[in-house]
Amino acid sequence: MDKQSLAALIDTQAENTSLDQAFYTDADIYQRDIEEVFLKSWLYAGHSSEIPAVGDWFLFEMAGESVIIVRSTETEISALINVCRHRGSKICLDHSGCSKKLVCRYHGWSYNLDGQLHSAAHMGEGFDKSGIKLKRIQTEVLEGMIYVNFSDQAADFTPVREALTDCLQPYQLDHAKVAHRQTYAIDANWKLSVENYTECYHCAPSHPEYTRGHSLAKPGARSAALMKDVMARAGACGLSDKVVNQVYLDEPGFGTGFAYERYPMWRGHVTGSDDGQPVAPLLGEIRDYDGGTTDFQIGPVTFALAYCDYVVIYRFTPVSLGKSECNISWLVNGDAEKGRDYEKQRLTWLWDVTTQADKRIIEYNSEGVKSRFYEPGPYSEMEAYTWKFMSWYLQAIKP
Amino acid sequence: MDKQSLAALIDTQAENTSLDQAFYTDADIYQRDIEEVFLKSWLYAGHSSEIPAVGDWFLFEMAGESVIIVRSTETEISALINVCRHRGSKICLDHSGCSKKLVCRYHGWSYNLDGQLHSAAHMGEGFDKSGIKLKRIQTEVLEGMIYVNFSDQAADFTPVREALTDCLQPYQLDHAKVAHRQTYAIDANWKLSVENYTECYHCAPSHPEYTRGHSLAKPGARSAALMKDVMARAGACGLSDKVVNQVYLDEPGFGTGFAYERYPMWRGHVTGSDDGQPVAPLLGEIRDYDGGTTDFQIGPVTFALAYCDYVVIYRFTPVSLGKSECNISWLVNGDAEKGRDYEKQRLTWLWDVTTQADKRIIEYNSEGVKSRFYEPGPYSEMEAYTWKFMSWYLQAIKP
Amino acid sequence: MDKQSLAALIDTQAENTSLDQAFYTDADIYQRDIEEVFLKSWLYAGHSSEIPAVGDWFLFEMAGESVIIVRSTETEISALINVCRHRGSKICLDHSGCSKKLVCRYHGWSYNLDGQLHSAAHMGEGFDKSGIKLKRIQTEVLEGMIYVNFSDQAADFTPVREALTDCLQPYQLDHAKVAHRQTYAIDANWKLSVENYTECYHCAPSHPEYTRGHSLAKPGARSAALMKDVMARAGACGLSDKVVNQVYLDEPGFGTGFAYERYPMWRGHVTGSDDGQPVAPLLGEIRDYDGGTTDFQIGPVTFALAYCDYVVIYRFTPVSLGKSECNISWLVNGDAEKGRDYEKQRLTWLWDVTTQADKRIIEYNSEGVKSRFYEPGPYSEMEAYTWKFMSWYLQAIKP
Repeated sequence: MDKQSLAALIDTQAENTSLDQAFYTDADIYQRDIEEVFLKSWLYAGHSSEIPAVGDWFLFEMAGESVIIVRSTETEISALINVCRHRGSKICLDHSGCSKKLVCRYHGWSYNLDGQLHSAAHMGEGFDKSGIKLKRIQTEVLEGMIYVNFSDQAADFTPVREALTDCLQPYQLDHAKVAHRQTYAIDANWKLSVENYTECYHCAPSHPEYTRGHSLAKPGARSAALMKDVMARAGACGLSDKVVNQVYLDEPGFGTGFAYERYPMWRGHVTGSDDGQPVAPLLGEIRDYDGGTTDFQIGPVTFALAYCDYVVIYRFTPVSLGKSECNISWLVNGDAEKGRDYEKQRLTWLWDVTTQADKRIIEYNSEGVKSRFYEPGPYSEMEAYTWKFMSWYLQAIKP
Repeated sequence: MDKQSLAALIDTQAENTSLDQAFYTDADIYQRDIEEVFLKSWLYAGHSSEIPAVGDWFLFEMAGESVIIVRSTETEISALINVCRHRGSKICLDHSGCSKKLVCRYHGWSYNLDGQLHSAAHMGEGFDKSGIKLKRIQTEVLEGMIYVNFSDQAADFTPVREALTDCLQPYQLDHAKVAHRQTYAIDANWKLSVENYTECYHCAPSHPEYTRGHSLAKPGARSAALMKDVMARAGACGLSDKVVNQVYLDEPGFGTGFAYERYPMWRGHVTGSDDGQPVAPLLGEIRDYDGGTTDFQIGPVTFALAYCDYVVIYRFTPVSLGKSECNISWLVNGDAEKGRDYEKQRLTWLWDVTTQADKRIIEYNSEGVKSRFYEPGPYSEMEAYTWKFMSWYLQAIKP
Repeated sequence: MDKQSLAALIDTQAENTSLDQAFYTDADIYQRDIEEVFLKSWLYAGHSSEIPAVGDWFLFEMAGESVIIVRSTETEISALINVCRHRGSKICLDHSGCSKKLVCRYHGWSYNLDGQLHSAAHMGEGFDKSGIKLKRIQTEVLEGMIYVNFSDQAADFTPVREALTDCLQPYQLDHAKVAHRQTYAIDANWKLSVENYTECYHCAPSHPEYTRGHSLAKPGARSAALMKDVMARAGACGLSDKVVNQVYLDEPGFGTGFAYERYPMWRGHVTGSDDGQPVAPLLGEIRDYDGGTTDFQIGPVTFALAYCDYVVIYRFTPVSLGKSECNISWLVNGDAEKGRDYEKQRLTWLWDVTTQADKRIIEYNSEGVKSRFYEPGPYSEMEAYTWKFMSWYLQAIKP
């Protein structure tokens, strides 16, 4: 689809209505999605506790790109394109590791942890290794969470930091640790995955496990009353009752949208678990369970749920036109010990079972939107946030 | 391939000769195949005995489309596009089922059995559900066989009904039942599958199991003598000796071609089975085995063999440019009981072993036509029917 | 990519530098690779010992093409396109076999061993079978090695024969036999596979098994001294010390490049094996181990290593844009008996373990060059031969 046709197509998309089929099936639009959204937005790469020592690294992979996230000094984390400057081989081959140098196994070129070429044999007289470096992309660390941006003109991250540091402070996420991390492959265009995450219209019909503890699944008066209660308790428990919301078209700079909001759980649940009871020690400086939970968001495709005892961070990325991935990190108090303070199975149960269900749901959605008879349909009142995402997306890729 | 090039290419196809490679490998031609052939022809979906009660449904799937074939009232069968009018999710997910409402599991939208939206939560004040229906396609039921047509300008089915009702009457297929149904995936363009079915030139070299009972495999004088015998007995056995044939370019309306013809079996075989002996009770009003069998056809890609004790219905559909499916239904007398009156293995043996062989043959044909050195070759005298199909096809897709 | 853009892109490729991404990912360039390189070059198909008797055949398959290499008479080997002239079915379906006629299993058309149509049933009165033949491509047999060329304007093979017959004579490869043959599937464009084979820059970091016996892995003074020793002994052992080299841009005709060169092994190794000790009887007229080994090449993608006791022949071919195959034949003295004179596992160990490693290396290279951040990088001094290949390739496909 050429740019003129795409611009015209975007102009015909109705408000609060699902998108035309082409946005899920057209290869040119997919290329624009990558270039205009994913190569320009702040994306969650992982958590600083995953690379505690100098030389520790893990890979952040998306849409065919591979980035080495490495602790290059005690105080610096680097994000280096995982492509050798010799003949282009992938350098780091495992999910994670620890190295003094980053060595390409093909021809033995070795790089310092900041990406500078350290040694390359048989390169001849005139070879000047000082000018050869692994390509770097920008990084920002907020409360231990590592964000990256592929663009050399990335929007300033400062507003995110200024808006969220206070809200997140009680969780002390920079002292949290990753108890488990898992990637779910989804056979669907990435937007179908994000659409699914950004609305809770499907929670009641599709997620009984979530619905029994989370009031978001059933909007109405009951939640409003609960809301008041929880907010009254939040302060006493050490949690922020602030609401911040500058997402999507309200974002301060491209791909920097953020939000923080607390809302009540119900039916006696105090966290996201099978029976609503704690699954790990309290996080950070939190003093007690206030009966609520927090949603926060940083950038267009990273979403988190912060309970008093654990945090799950969701990240959605494309793999190809018709495939995407959902990566989930479960964070607990950095002092918690597996087996003693938490059980992985119990900790991860709710969001694993929910994500497995979402994977199926999204894949059936994908099958349907590929039909020649699919037509965009009306969003419900509970899909307003999805439309926020969609209207931002349409503007982001508009030529 | 643009339309002008396609029209020119069609004009250069030689008579009674296999087609140029592009017809099997060009993505644009495949799109035309779908739009001009499959979305406009009458296609066999299944049998009314598969959905005896109100709310019973099964899916008819083809080329990425999914249609819910549902008994919406005691007397009405509906064919509904299996795509939710909300955000496009597939609604019915199994091969078949029984439901009071058709409920999309994603957001809980529910539809009546005729496709009318019944309920959708949280849609706001101005929402008028009365205007929202699952898309319907046309259906016709002939002697229990359900045919569908995706086009809203489908050719009239009446001539088929008028021509075949009498011929088929002795079989009483509306009182038959489906003893077995199976789909064979074939890694080849759908036309290679139909070409294979429409000629018996390959029967002698490729199908020893079929050839030992069916005279079609070896044309000549012997068959002519047998023919006379069988036709003389047919009437006494309660079978029609009529020949009707208005297929392909002789069809009364697009995609409505039909044919009925009886021909002799030989070597003492009275039905299609391992030893030529009956495998199920006589169908309908048939009084005895006359030593013959019937071929009938409805539409361009549905073919049936009617023996005195069972009927197999073949349907060929595309999956993608290089993949197709052969779906076979085995029908027996509605009063027959499995185990007592027929054994599934014995009933299905001949056409299962033959179709497994055809799958292999067609796939090797597909490998060959993709060669840069493939050139169209001459059809034999036994491939005249294949050329009927091909010349109709070329005209059908001609821009 | 249109021809003008391709020509311009080729002009911008820097010398002694890896290629732009498009050469590995562009479908139009891949089509040119097939047409301009593989359909015009001399390619190794197999060895005459694989088809000793009249009617013996094996298949040579590449880029979707299948060729029957058949001994059509005592003295003639034919290469016939494996596509029936009737409706294009593949005829020979196994890797190898022995047949009096080549019979298409689909409709029973049978061909003589020279490709002439022998019989076809039911073709009608005017059918003249004499004009129908399987398509033939050119063959040349050099010391038992069968080479084929798809082009009807193939460059003359005579210069290869004249240059190499003497050098190869001591090996008596026409009396050798294939002890093992194996195909390695590589998920990478074929050029990445050939690049890997044509340089030993990666040998030291990637192939410890090879490096411990082969001096090529570590260039320098040590090899030069060894070289003199080996060459002094070669004549006494019955081996040629000639060096011939007319590869790539120096080839006498398109796709006929050839080379022969002997170089020293080291650390007491006399052949390519786990411990450097013999794994099979001496080949041909060779009288003793001289401590060296031979590299020879015929055509752009066939490479061989000739030890005193065995020869491995490598052939690289494309499967599709992003997939290639490495086919290896292990040849031993024709009189050697498996079990008595050689063990397959010990014979094949070195080049199997090395090729398994190369497969992995090449696939990681492929992942890297697909990155949007990949940039061509500088070749080392040890990749001069790779640049010879690359500069020839660029000229070969230049419109």
